[in-house]
Amino acid sequence: MIVVMEMRATSEQIEAVKSYLTEKGFGIHLSQGEERTIMGIIGNDAQKANLNLENFEGVDKVVPILTPYKLAGRQMHERNTIVKIGDVSFGGDELQVMAGPCAVESREQILEVAEMVKAGGAKIMRGGAFKPRTSPYSFQGLEEQGLKYLAEAREKTGLLIISEVVDPRSVAMMAEYVDILQIGARNMQNFALLREISHYKKPVLLKRGLSATIEEWIMAAEYLLAGGNEDVILCERGIRTFETYTRNTLDISAVPIMKTLTHLPVVVDPSHGTGKWRLVNPMAKASLAAGADGLIIEVHPNPKEALSDGPQSLTPENFTLLMQELNVLAGAMNKRLF
Amino acid sequence: MIVVMEMRATSEQIEAVKSYLTEKGFGIHLSQGEERTIMGIIGNDAQKANLNLENFEGVDKVVPILTPYKLAGRQMHERNTIVKIGDVSFGGDELQVMAGPCAVESREQILEVAEMVKAGGAKIMRGGAFKPRTSPYSFQGLEEQGLKYLAEAREKTGLLIISEVVDPRSVAMMAEYVDILQIGARNMQNFALLREISHYKKPVLLKRGLSATIEEWIMAAEYLLAGGNEDVILCERGIRTFETYTRNTLDISAVPIMKTLTHLPVVVDPSHGTGKWRLVNPMAKASLAAGADGLIIEVHPNPKEALSDGPQSLTPENFTLLMQELNVLAGAMNKRLF
Amino acid sequence: MIVVMEMRATSEQIEAVKSYLTEKGFGIHLSQGEERTIMGIIGNDAQKANLNLENFEGVDKVVPILTPYKLAGRQMHERNTIVKIGDVSFGGDELQVMAGPCAVESREQILEVAEMVKAGGAKIMRGGAFKPRTSPYSFQGLEEQGLKYLAEAREKTGLLIISEVVDPRSVAMMAEYVDILQIGARNMQNFALLREISHYKKPVLLKRGLSATIEEWIMAAEYLLAGGNEDVILCERGIRTFETYTRNTLDISAVPIMKTLTHLPVVVDPSHGTGKWRLVNPMAKASLAAGADGLIIEVHPNPKEALSDGPQSLTPENFTLLMQELNVLAGAMNKRLF
Amino acid sequence: MIVVMEMRATSEQIEAVKSYLTEKGFGIHLSQGEERTIMGIIGNDAQKANLNLENFEGVDKVVPILTPYKLAGRQMHERNTIVKIGDVSFGGDELQVMAGPCAVESREQILEVAEMVKAGGAKIMRGGAFKPRTSPYSFQGLEEQGLKYLAEAREKTGLLIISEVVDPRSVAMMAEYVDILQIGARNMQNFALLREISHYKKPVLLKRGLSATIEEWIMAAEYLLAGGNEDVILCERGIRTFETYTRNTLDISAVPIMKTLTHLPVVVDPSHGTGKWRLVNPMAKASLAAGADGLIIEVHPNPKEALSDGPQSLTPENFTLLMQELNVLAGAMNKRLF
Repeated sequence: MIVVMEMRATSEQIEAVKSYLTEKGFGIHLSQGEERTIMGIIGNDAQKANLNLENFEGVDKVVPILTPYKLAGRQMHERNTIVKIGDVSFGGDELQVMAGPCAVESREQILEVAEMVKAGGAKIMRGGAFKPRTSPYSFQGLEEQGLKYLAEAREKTGLLIISEVVDPRSVAMMAEYVDILQIGARNMQNFALLREISHYKKPVLLKRGLSATIEEWIMAAEYLLAGGNEDVILCERGIRTFETYTRNTLDISAVPIMKTLTHLPVVVDPSHGTGKWRLVNPMAKASLAAGADGLIIEVHPNPKEALSDGPQSLTPENFTLLMQELNVLAGAMNKRLF
Repeated sequence: MIVVMEMRATSEQIEAVKSYLTEKGFGIHLSQGEERTIMGIIGNDAQKANLNLENFEGVDKVVPILTPYKLAGRQMHERNTIVKIGDVSFGGDELQVMAGPCAVESREQILEVAEMVKAGGAKIMRGGAFKPRTSPYSFQGLEEQGLKYLAEAREKTGLLIISEVVDPRSVAMMAEYVDILQIGARNMQNFALLREISHYKKPVLLKRGLSATIEEWIMAAEYLLAGGNEDVILCERGIRTFETYTRNTLDISAVPIMKTLTHLPVVVDPSHGTGKWRLVNPMAKASLAAGADGLIIEVHPNPKEALSDGPQSLTPENFTLLMQELNVLAGAMNKRLF
Repeated sequence: MIVVMEMRATSEQIEAVKSYLTEKGFGIHLSQGEERTIMGIIGNDAQKANLNLENFEGVDKVVPILTPYKLAGRQMHERNTIVKIGDVSFGGDELQVMAGPCAVESREQILEVAEMVKAGGAKIMRGGAFKPRTSPYSFQGLEEQGLKYLAEAREKTGLLIISEVVDPRSVAMMAEYVDILQIGARNMQNFALLREISHYKKPVLLKRGLSATIEEWIMAAEYLLAGGNEDVILCERGIRTFETYTRNTLDISAVPIMKTLTHLPVVVDPSHGTGKWRLVNPMAKASLAAGADGLIIEVHPNPKEALSDGPQSLTPENFTLLMQELNVLAGAMNKRLF
Repeated sequence: MIVVMEMRATSEQIEAVKSYLTEKGFGIHLSQGEERTIMGIIGNDAQKANLNLENFEGVDKVVPILTPYKLAGRQMHERNTIVKIGDVSFGGDELQVMAGPCAVESREQILEVAEMVKAGGAKIMRGGAFKPRTSPYSFQGLEEQGLKYLAEAREKTGLLIISEVVDPRSVAMMAEYVDILQIGARNMQNFALLREISHYKKPVLLKRGLSATIEEWIMAAEYLLAGGNEDVILCERGIRTFETYTRNTLDISAVPIMKTLTHLPVVVDPSHGTGKWRLVNPMAKASLAAGADGLIIEVHPNPKEALSDGPQSLTPENFTLLMQELNVLAGAMNKRLF
């Protein structure tokens, strides 16, 4: 942490800052320039976060130097984390596609989708049983019944299951049914939920919040890791910008950034990231080309009848076509899809 | 809802959309222009939300017409809602200032602040017992013990208490201690929490999410109203933009907008809205000048020693000065502060 | 400027950075922490801007410390700049309102507006003769003929004139007609235009760019000051955010920020800042309450017939009402409007 | 254009809107719903833009339906535009990489880069002679002398030349030296510059503005096309968002969007789009995978000594490596790079 004093800071003001830091037990590295005094603060990082140097007269600004995350960062953990679930793995040479409808709508729908997802070549099925909806009047999901249908589909097809958890009170129940717990964008900083999930030995897919910075996203992962859950998969799903043509702006640069700063696998959701099914194909390809470890994609047997997110869902035909094109691309990237 | 067909939409494509709508039981108002066909859809609003017209070939765009909120909107409820708590009220001619520290740190601190807040002329004290923090390593609050200190301060001073609730599992407990439940920005779309709180007869202060649109914010209020809790106070607290000089960009225009679109009281948090105590004074004044019903302000007996948000906390002296200046301004606005 | 090395930077990497800096003639203030090496760079600021330390292996990040502006900043120029034009002044105790139509549409219109603006109590009239329009098919302004009408209105009423200049080739001509040259938001970083205007002794109103940071805005003012034009008035006019209810998000916090960082007068444009005439009144008041030195407001004798920006233009009646309310507010702020 | 009346609009208010529209010569398609009255407006599009319906009492909102661009849109011009310059073409099966330094710094530098660019397999060299810089104290470019060096490099290597034009007064001169005129992000809405360039028969690369919407960007292209210049290449270069880890957020979804909405070639600038050379490689690949027609990339013989944009410039080695990887990817996409 660096304290930059104002140009006209008096020696009394500089002394006041020094005394405060010394009292708190910090060392000071003083740099008296021609125009300004700058102080480097030496000592315990966590305690530095509680210093309120901006409140001192004569202080111009305080510049943090160290990254606030430890467990999620690559600095202490150089090798890639490989998240393994049975014979499926995230973070290595194999690419994973998670596909399925936004919401579990009925037993028939979900069994039909499962066959379709499997036929397309994917190994994991997505489907929401608890839906966080902007409007209280929208379809809110089939809840536990939906999870039962997902479990049945898994039994029939061998596909793994991922589904979103939205309430700390239902984590235990959800963990019984699913293979990967999904934390949605709106809950990325729902710390009560993060803490609850951190106590389970169950892989988690952590979506980036709508307006979460790279650092906030890593800190949310840090909550999970600090609580003991090490199987964290990051998911870029678009951020909120001024552009309204798309539902969100898919920030594909987050893929190489997160692969550099953390050791965790990174996947992309081009369905929510764009909100338009026509853009899912090119953005899925772009994600893999940028180095993503996988994708999560909305597919529906009949998007026109979907109870939510129809406009961004692929038909079975378009999904199969996409998988074939991704397979060619994977080869060019020295990765494996099928 | 209006469906705009593409310029070169074929008559088969137009027929397909019409059949789909007719089957679903909607009426159609057809407008065949020289260049395009446009259809107005007539029928039940909630059901319209489930139409996936973007999935049809030949559809250019779908334009929603009606506002998706009913209970929060002024259209069905013309008069201002006045939220009353004892002899304190929000939404009428009286302006309310809620003041206090970001976090309850100790019994001594909170009793000292309470005297200071009362001396300044405010009637409500804020103080966080459960703190949502970006880092798992930051101070997370005194939890229920903090609430007990707040209750003791209320008893001593007669001030009302507002504190943030972050977990659906602790709403019942919190409701025992506080006069107003606060929903923080990060939880504005924590629907499990909103639904839980909606079942209590306890005033709620609903902060705007970091990147929540006006409409999403109203829809979050709609969750509370739809569940039965009618005492909702809206709180603008800054939105996330590209600007980094301030912690957030305080969107004061949200005050007259929300007063126009809804019947609910609107207050402003200039402390989180700017992140800098030097900006709190001018932005507090600007908020009242724009028509806000009140303010929530961070005050600390010694901001340099605050465990969180020190840089945006006012000292007792600056708080007292602000209250005097606000009182003059209130007079010029035909409102009452003291 | 501070260079932060990576945690695992080798001594060779550290040496490489040191040699590079020493060769370039910079001094180094080395701070060898337990976890990291940090270097403060001592020497000429302008030259520091050309260092490419991010290109060295082992460098984690480079943190600039000093502000890049000199002439616009308060550090070298403590007292407020008062921009004087005849008996009108910006930046002192007097508040200025500039009012008029978005575009000069005809001689009749502009003479009618001028009377109305004067009757309302304002001393400066705005009116665009060259209009920067998003569409090439929209009305582009009356050009020099429009300036002649403005000059005629000035002669008749004694009002001063402000109008926008959009092309470096027309600065000389514009300077003959107007009292204040306006640089629009889209041209805030049109450096050819800034440089041209900087050579004139003519007050300039510099609008903030649509997505300009505080620092970029000050740097644009620095172009004007560095070229010799010292009469710069800053104008906040809303920034682009995710919110679409308003045309822009008016960042009123920019007023106290710019008054702190610079010595220049700051005014606000609530018309473009909101895009909705109903919001102009509350946001005009909020701007003055936050400390603005004045306002620029769109007024039209008949907004329904305006050739541009009708939806954000006040009628004469609403303008007169606003001026009266602002006058009361000015009194409460110890400023003078009339 | 659709006018939505308020729920409680009176019949007088509805009549007032109808009379106004009828007087102006527009047809009305009236839709009287149970809750609201909605009017579709029939008639000339350009004139509709001048209607100020928001100023009428009882009007809730006005919804534009038609796209405001004609020449740039695919609706009137279904086939892809292929921009041809000698034997180089944009928009077909061949991918183009434009490479070179941010700024022309000296004759030696530019001749060295030219050999390097050619050796890497690219056919076009970029290099700035007029640099738009945030600070008036930064290096502003070698101006016409820089163009002469570029011309010499072209003569020696056969590479085509692209360089940025920043002032309408220098378009004629620039057009003598370069093969493609570049319009920078800050000048995307410099309409005086757009109009000037539109009168030349010279290919133009039009960068997206820092916070330009998709529609504003197309409208800027429309200025060029409407003036007679049909050889427009669009360039996505990152937009401004809340994220500060990267210089900008590269919006790769703009590639398939612009290929859908317009018939113009689309290229991507991953150097400015990220600001970090380590991200250029993955984002270049992602751009091609999303369907881009080419790339513009900053390369410098010695990025550590670059006078501008060093941190985002590739070394010759990294450039050569990237070109090889892109060639493999191009094959997988059925395109040709070399």
